[in-house]
Amino acid sequence: MDHERFIQMALELAQRAVAHGNHPFGALLVKDEKIVLTAENTVNTDTDCTRHAELNLVSRASRELDAQTLSQCTLYTSTEPCAMCAGAIYWADIPRVVYACSERILDDIAGGNLRLPCQEVFARGQRSIEVIGPILETQAAQLHKAFWPSQGD
Amino acid sequence: MDHERFIQMALELAQRAVAHGNHPFGALLVKDEKIVLTAENTVNTDTDCTRHAELNLVSRASRELDAQTLSQCTLYTSTEPCAMCAGAIYWADIPRVVYACSERILDDIAGGNLRLPCQEVFARGQRSIEVIGPILETQAAQLHKAFWPSQGD
Repeated sequence: MDHERFIQMALELAQRAVAHGNHPFGALLVKDEKIVLTAENTVNTDTDCTRHAELNLVSRASRELDAQTLSQCTLYTSTEPCAMCAGAIYWADIPRVVYACSERILDDIAGGNLRLPCQEVFARGQRSIEVIGPILETQAAQLHKAFWPSQGD
Repeated sequence: MDHERFIQMALELAQRAVAHGNHPFGALLVKDEKIVLTAENTVNTDTDCTRHAELNLVSRASRELDAQTLSQCTLYTSTEPCAMCAGAIYWADIPRVVYACSERILDDIAGGNLRLPCQEVFARGQRSIEVIGPILETQAAQLHKAFWPSQGD
C-alpha cells in the first residue's frame, strides 16, 4: 500500500476543511488502492461538535457501503482519531487505520484534547484493528500550527 | 436531583427505540430538573452504526443549544456511553452523565462491545465530567436480555 499518497490526500482534505470554514481535519476510505469515500471536518459549518472528519466518513460509509466492502477498507486520516472517532471506526468494523499527526502532537499544539491514543481504545474491543502512523507527521503538524497559532511553537 | 425519574424516562426511550425497529438505547438531556432534549438509538432505521442514542442527543444539543446551557445539563442514558459517545459528550462540554446499565453488564448480555468504561475516557480529558451510575440496573439489563435473547442468562 502506498500510504504516503493517501495520507497526502487526507492532508489536502484537511486544508479544504479550513478553506470551508472548519477545523483542519480530513479523512478518506480506500479499498484495493482506490479511494471509496472522502470526508472533511464540518464542526463549524454544521454547528455540531460531533462532525469530525472520521465520524462524517464512518457515518457515510455505514449508510453507503456493505459490511463486506467495509471489512476490506483502510481509513486514512490527517490526525489520529479521537476516542469518539475510534469508537465509530470500531462499530463500523473497519480493520485498518493510517494516520499522519499523532493525538499527542495535536494536543501539544491545540490543547484541550482527550489524551487517549486510538490504539488504547481499539485494544478494549473484541476484534483486531491495525493502526499505522504517524506518517508525514511534520507536514501534518504544520497544518495545526497554522490553524491554532496562539498555541505551540 | 431525582435521578430515578429521569433514568426511568431513558428506559422508556430505549423501549420506544425497539418499537421503532432499533436497538434498546435512549438518552435525554436535563437542565434545572426539566427535560431539554430526548433521543433514541436509530442505528437500524438510519443504516448508520454511529447513530447511538447519546451521539444523536449530543449532535442535536450541539446544534440547538448554546454553550452556557450545555454547561448546566445532565445527560441521562439507559446504558453507560460507549467510547464513541463518551468522546462526543466530552466535545460537547456536558458536565455530568447518569446511566442505568453499566457497559460491563451490557457486554455480558450482548457481547462485542468496547470494554472501556466512560470514566476511563473522561479521565483522559482536560476537564472534569461527573459520572453517576449504575441506577435501576436490573431493570435496564432486562431490556437488553429481552432484545438479545441468544446471549446472557
